[in-house]
Amino acid sequence: MAQHLYLYENISESLRCHIRQGNYRSGERLPSVRSLSRLFKVSVNTITQCFRQLEADGYIEVRPRSGVFVADTLPRQAPPAPIAHFPLLPVEVSLSEDILHFMEPHARPELVHLGIALPSPGLIAVDRALKTMREVTRTHSLEAWDYTHPHGHDRFTHQLSRRSIHYPVPINQGELLVTNGCMEGIELALRALTEPGDTVAVETPTYYGTLLALGVMRRRALEIPTHYRDGVCLYSLEQAFKRGQVKACLLSTNAQNPLGFTMSSERKRKLVDLAVRYDVPIIENDIWGDTVYAGEALPAKAYDETGMVIYCNSFSKTLMPGLRLGWVAPGRYHHRIRELKQISSITTASVPQLMMARLMENGFYAQHIQQLRSQLANQATHMAERVRACFPVNTRVDIPTGGCALWIGLPRGGDSRVLFEKALEAGIHVFPGSVFSAGSRHTSYLRLNAGNPCDDQLDSAIDRLGALAASL
Amino acid sequence: MAQHLYLYENISESLRCHIRQGNYRSGERLPSVRSLSRLFKVSVNTITQCFRQLEADGYIEVRPRSGVFVADTLPRQAPPAPIAHFPLLPVEVSLSEDILHFMEPHARPELVHLGIALPSPGLIAVDRALKTMREVTRTHSLEAWDYTHPHGHDRFTHQLSRRSIHYPVPINQGELLVTNGCMEGIELALRALTEPGDTVAVETPTYYGTLLALGVMRRRALEIPTHYRDGVCLYSLEQAFKRGQVKACLLSTNAQNPLGFTMSSERKRKLVDLAVRYDVPIIENDIWGDTVYAGEALPAKAYDETGMVIYCNSFSKTLMPGLRLGWVAPGRYHHRIRELKQISSITTASVPQLMMARLMENGFYAQHIQQLRSQLANQATHMAERVRACFPVNTRVDIPTGGCALWIGLPRGGDSRVLFEKALEAGIHVFPGSVFSAGSRHTSYLRLNAGNPCDDQLDSAIDRLGALAASL
Repeated sequence: MAQHLYLYENISESLRCHIRQGNYRSGERLPSVRSLSRLFKVSVNTITQCFRQLEADGYIEVRPRSGVFVADTLPRQAPPAPIAHFPLLPVEVSLSEDILHFMEPHARPELVHLGIALPSPGLIAVDRALKTMREVTRTHSLEAWDYTHPHGHDRFTHQLSRRSIHYPVPINQGELLVTNGCMEGIELALRALTEPGDTVAVETPTYYGTLLALGVMRRRALEIPTHYRDGVCLYSLEQAFKRGQVKACLLSTNAQNPLGFTMSSERKRKLVDLAVRYDVPIIENDIWGDTVYAGEALPAKAYDETGMVIYCNSFSKTLMPGLRLGWVAPGRYHHRIRELKQISSITTASVPQLMMARLMENGFYAQHIQQLRSQLANQATHMAERVRACFPVNTRVDIPTGGCALWIGLPRGGDSRVLFEKALEAGIHVFPGSVFSAGSRHTSYLRLNAGNPCDDQLDSAIDRLGALAASL
Repeated sequence: MAQHLYLYENISESLRCHIRQGNYRSGERLPSVRSLSRLFKVSVNTITQCFRQLEADGYIEVRPRSGVFVADTLPRQAPPAPIAHFPLLPVEVSLSEDILHFMEPHARPELVHLGIALPSPGLIAVDRALKTMREVTRTHSLEAWDYTHPHGHDRFTHQLSRRSIHYPVPINQGELLVTNGCMEGIELALRALTEPGDTVAVETPTYYGTLLALGVMRRRALEIPTHYRDGVCLYSLEQAFKRGQVKACLLSTNAQNPLGFTMSSERKRKLVDLAVRYDVPIIENDIWGDTVYAGEALPAKAYDETGMVIYCNSFSKTLMPGLRLGWVAPGRYHHRIRELKQISSITTASVPQLMMARLMENGFYAQHIQQLRSQLANQATHMAERVRACFPVNTRVDIPTGGCALWIGLPRGGDSRVLFEKALEAGIHVFPGSVFSAGSRHTSYLRLNAGNPCDDQLDSAIDRLGALAASL
C-alpha cells in the first residue's frame, strides 16, 4: 500500500480496503470513533478526519446518534492517488508553447468549451453589470474620464477593505492597490520579490498561468506536493524553506485551481506561521475565493499579522473577465509594488472601479456571488456524477469545494494529452493535466470546466469524453 | 558666442545679434538667401533653415516675392539657450520621491492646475465618448463581458493598422498588441530590451515618467542633448552608440514633452538608420503624435523597415486618460513583448477597445483630433504670448508644434524649484524643469500645462506667475 504523507490518509486507505474487500458490507456499522482510535493508536480527531474523508468519497454514511455505516452503493471511482513523493528540485519552466497549443481551441466557437475554467456568462447578471457601467458613465462622467489615483478609486478600495470585516487581521484601505486583473498583481509581486534565476515554491498541480509567468520571467519553479483536499503539503514546504532555496511562495488556499480544495483555517494559519518563521513571503492567489460553495472562506492573508502575505484577487471569475479589474493587498511589500505598478499601467481604468464600487455598495455583488456559488456547486456535482457514470471504472473525480474546475484522474495508463487530441476531433475542448505542472506530472489527469449550465449538449459531451477515455 | 551643434544655429545667432544690435533695423530688408549663402559659404538650404528659425522666433518676416524683412517689433524674449554640451555619462536615476513631491498638488482641487500636461475635459467630447461606451455595452454585451484575444480586439487593431496608410512602411495588424495605456507599452519594451544596470539613451529634457520608469527598473539613463526645435542630437546619439554603451533608446519624435518639437522626416529617417547601423532598438513614445498642430505627423516607426522601432501610443492625451487604452507595434520584439504582456494583465479590457473601434470606424476620432489640435494650438499661442508679456524680460518661451506643454526658460539664475513653492503658496501648480532630467539639469526651466481653455482665471494665474518669476 502506498505510503501517505498524512496519518489519517493511511488509516482511511486501510478502511477503504476493508470496505472494498467486503469485510464491511453495505449497510453494516463500522466500529465507533473511540474504538478505532484505540485500535489504530491515534487520536479521536484523526479518526474523525478519516470519517470525513470516507464520507465525502461516498464510502460511508454518518447517521447522527446511530453511528457510522458503510454506504448502500459504493463509489465506482478509484480511491485518491496517494500524494506523490518526489525530490524537491527547482526546475526551469518552458511550458509556453505547450500552453498556447492547448489553449488555442478556446478561440473556436464551434467547440464545446470545457477547457478554460470560467463560469459561463449565463450564470452572471451580465446585463445588470453592464447597466451599472452605463449608469456610472452618466452620473460620474468626469471621474470616469479622468485618471484615478494610482492607489485606486477611494470608493472602490473602501468597499474592498470592508470585505475583511471577519478577518482576524483586517485589511486596511491604505494597503490596497488596484490592478488590471489578478494576474497583474501576481506578476508585480513576483517582480518585487524575486530576480531571474530565483526559485518560487508552487503547488503541483497549479494554475498554468502561474507556471507561464515563472517561465517568461525566468524564475524556477519548486513544485510542492499538494493534497487534493488539504492543499499544499506544509511538511514539504517547510523542508524547502529550511534549505533556504525558496525566495517566495505562490499558491491558493481557497477553491484551488485545478484541485478544488479549500485549506482549513488551521492549515492557513500554519502556512502563514511558516512564512514568518523562515522569512519567505507568500503570494496568495485568491481568484476563486469568492466561489467557495460553503460561503465566505478566509484567505491565509486573514491571519497575516506581519505583512508577509501579498494577497491578489479580481472579479474575472465571479463577474466579468473583460473588466480586467483586480486588487492587491501587498503587506510589507507595498512600496515596491506601488512603484512597479505606477511605471507600467500608471493607474487602473476608472469606469470599472466606479462600477464595482456601486455594485458592492448596493449589495448586488454579495447577493450575486451567493447565487453563483450554489449554481457552480450544482453544476460541479452534476458533472462529477455524469463523469462517474460515463467514464471507465477507476476514473477518479471529486466534487470541488468551490470554483468550476473538475480534476479527473484517468485509470492507470491513461494519457490526457492523447484524450485532448481525440476530444478535439470530437468537437470538445478539454485541458490535459500536464499543463498544470512544470515537471511533466499529472499526465493521467484531465481538467474539465464546470462553468457551463447543465444541459443535453453538456451531458452528451461528457458521454463522448467517457467513451473516448475508455478507448485509450 | 556659444558654439552650437548645428551650423544653421550659429548663423542664426549671428544674424540675431546683428538685428539686436541694430545693424538691421525693424522694417529693413535682409540680404537674399543666395547672397547670404555665398557670404557664409554654406548651402542655400542652411540659410533657408536659419530664416525659418528667425521667423519662428519673431525676428524676421518673410514676405513672398518681396524678400525677408526685420520684424516690426522685436521679441522681448531671450534667444534660445545653446544646446548644452556635456559629457555623455550614464547616470542612476533616483527621482522617485522628487517627482511624487512635485506631482502631489495635482490632487488638490482648489489649485489652478498648470502642472500635469493634459488637455482639459472641456476640450474633449467626454459625453460623446461615454455615450459610445454605453452603446457598445448594449450592442456587444457578450464581447464586452468576455476576455478579448491577448493581441487585442480584432476590430480595434484593424482600425489602428489603418492609421499607417500614409507610412512608407505600413504597420501590419498582426504586429500590434493592445496595452493599458502608452506607459505599459514602454515598460514592456524596456523589460524586453534591457536588464537592470543597462543604459538607455533618452532626450534631455524628457518626460519624467520615462525617468521614473528607468529609476524603478534600475536602468541607467544616458541623457542626450536635445534641441528645442530639431529634437535629439543625432551626432551625440551616434557617439553614444559607437561606444556601445547604449542598450536601447527611448524618445519622442512628435510634439515632444516638454520641448514641444516635432522632428523633420529627414531626421526621423536618420534616427532609424542609426538604430539599424548600430543595432540599438528605439522605443518611440508617440503619445502626443496625434496633437501635432500642423496635422498628421509620421512617427520614426513609419520609416522602420527592419523592425528596430517599438512604437507606443495611447488615447490618454487625446481622448480619455481614465480609459487606460494604448497599443504597441513592437517590430522584431513582438514575441517577447507579447509573452510579458500575457503574464501580466493577460489581455486588455474589452469595453474600451469596442468603444474606440466604433469611434474610429465612424470617423469621430479623426474629426475630434483635428479640433483638438487647433484648440491646443490656440491655447498654447495665447499662453506663450501672455507669458512673454508678464514674465521678466529675457524669459524664453516658444510655441510648441503640438501637445500642451509650454517649456519656459527663466532669466539667468532663476530656479524653478523655488518658483514651484512660491506658486503653490499663490494657489498655482506648476512643474519645475528639474524633474525632466536625471542629472539635475534644466533647473532654470518651468513647464506649464497649456491644456486649459483660455479664460480670466488662467490669465490671472500667468500674471501672478510672472510677478513671482520677477521676484526670484
